[in-house]
Parts: sequence; structure tokens; C-alpha cells
Amino acid sequence: MADKTLNDLFYDMLKDIYYAERKIVKALPKMARGAQAEEVKAAFKKHQDETQGHIERLQEVFELVGKRAVGKTCPAIDGILEEGEEMLDEFKGMAALDAALVAAAQAVEHYEIARYGTLKRWAETLGMADAAKLLDQTLQEEGATDEALSALADSGANERALAA
Amino acid sequence: MADKTLNDLFYDMLKDIYYAERKIVKALPKMARGAQAEEVKAAFKKHQDETQGHIERLQEVFELVGKRAVGKTCPAIDGILEEGEEMLDEFKGMAALDAALVAAAQAVEHYEIARYGTLKRWAETLGMADAAKLLDQTLQEEGATDEALSALADSGANERALAA
Repeated sequence: MADKTLNDLFYDMLKDIYYAERKIVKALPKMARGAQAEEVKAAFKKHQDETQGHIERLQEVFELVGKRAVGKTCPAIDGILEEGEEMLDEFKGMAALDAALVAAAQAVEHYEIARYGTLKRWAETLGMADAAKLLDQTLQEEGATDEALSALADSGANERALAA
Repeated sequence: MADKTLNDLFYDMLKDIYYAERKIVKALPKMARGAQAEEVKAAFKKHQDETQGHIERLQEVFELVGKRAVGKTCPAIDGILEEGEEMLDEFKGMAALDAALVAAAQAVEHYEIARYGTLKRWAETLGMADAAKLLDQTLQEEGATDEALSALADSGANERALAA
């Protein structure tokens, strides 16, 4: 068996995040529909469009490395989204729902921040500057989304959740 | 049925991260044993001690809110750790193993950063300054661990993974 190197790891992780992004883009409309405040709904819709862009950017990275764009089951994102759906069910119609949805979305963002941070660093080590640049663009957007979600929590979602 | 509010959400999330920390503290020795470079092994061992401290700090938070310290199955951390174990198996003895382990650990850290960030913000909204302070201490330590892992990747783990 040939020794597996950073190239294998990079391709494996690309497939992992490709699967994750495609699951996320399907989960976001449910979160948008569930959200109570218009500003929370709007944030999920905006992120859905961005996520579509991230999927296309990943397809460009697959092209750059000369590999087929395929996903690989990612138990991490499956578990993170499962928790989000549990929250959506458990807090449906309750004062705390938006706070719960924002928290669920931030867990998704942080998973992506971890993966894109790793992928960008690996692309740099592999000397793939163009791929690193694309991955960094998405990394920056995920970071901005996480900050926007924190602002939504602070600007009303958490306060509204106090109401009995 | 009473309307569920931020108090319920806060307690639910405490139980989620309590379960997660106790799974993480069991996973870290496996990662330390698997790691190839001494500096990677040492990082996992150091984080194991810190994680024990995080568990004790969570027990203090449970006490502050007058609730029993119990865990609640967290599919997110189960999925994240499952991916880490898959990597450990798949890259065992390979040049890329340490790079894979560092990446797996960063996914764990980012899950914790998301959860402690949310919990700290909720504790503040609930007017629980002492709990917020404890949660913020752990949040800062998880952030520092994530940065230390990035430094490990840059200082050799990723370069070593290039070797065939």
C-alpha cells in the first residue's frame, strides 16, 4: 500500500466539505421557514445563496486538482444538522426558537471555519496558490456569517427568548 | 405546555457540552498515542488536562444554576469524533497522520468554541455574570488551543505530510 500523503488528505477533506455544503444548502430553507423574526429569516436566506456559491467554488477547486467533484459522507455535519433539527422541533413556536436556530447555525459555521482553515493551509503547503485563494474566500465569508449571527443574537434574538 | 425560554435552552446546551467534553477527554489519549511527532503528542496530552478542567468548570456552572450535572447525547460531537477516528485508522503509520490528527482536533475545538460562545452570551442575557465568567474562561482556552494547533500544522506537521 502506497504511503498516504497530504495530497490524499486534501482530496478526502475536499469531498467531506463538499458533502457538508450540499447538506447545509438543503437545511437552510427549513431554518429560514422556522425562524420567527424577519431579520433571522433574512439571514438564513442570504446564507443559502452564499452556500450555493461555496459549492461552486469547491467545484473549481476539484477542477484545479484534476479530480471529480464528489462528496463523501461526513458524520460530523450529519450530527450537527441533526442537533439543529432537534432544536427546531423542540422549540417550535416557543419564545426561544430564534436563539436556538442562531446557535445551531453557529455550530455549522464553526465546522466550516475549521475545515476551510485546514484546507487553505494544506493547499498552501501543497503549493496550490489558486486553490488556497478560493478556499480563503469562503473561509472569510464563513467567518463574517458567524459574526453576523452573533450580532443577531445580541440584537434581539436572545432577549426575545427571555419572554415566557 | 409551558413556553420554553432561554433558561431551558441554556440548561439543554449545558448538558450537550457536558456530554461532549466527557467524550473528548476519552478520545484525546487515543489521539496522543496515535500521534507521531513528540510535539503533537504533547499538545494532545496538555489539552487532555485542560479538558478535565473544563468538565469541572461546567460542574460549577450546573451548581450556579441549581441543576444536576448530567449529559445529553450530542450527535454533533459523536460525528466529529467518529471522523477523527476514521482518520486515525485510515492514515495510521502514514506520513500524513499528524496533519490529519491536527485537523480532527481543530474540528473539535471549533465545535466547542461555537457552544461556549453561545452559552456565554446566553448567561449574560440571563443575568448570570458568574456563569458567564466561567464559560468565557473555557472559551478563551479553546481559542488558544485552536491557535496552538494551527501553529503545530505550520511548524512541521503539514510539511512532514508531503513526504511520500
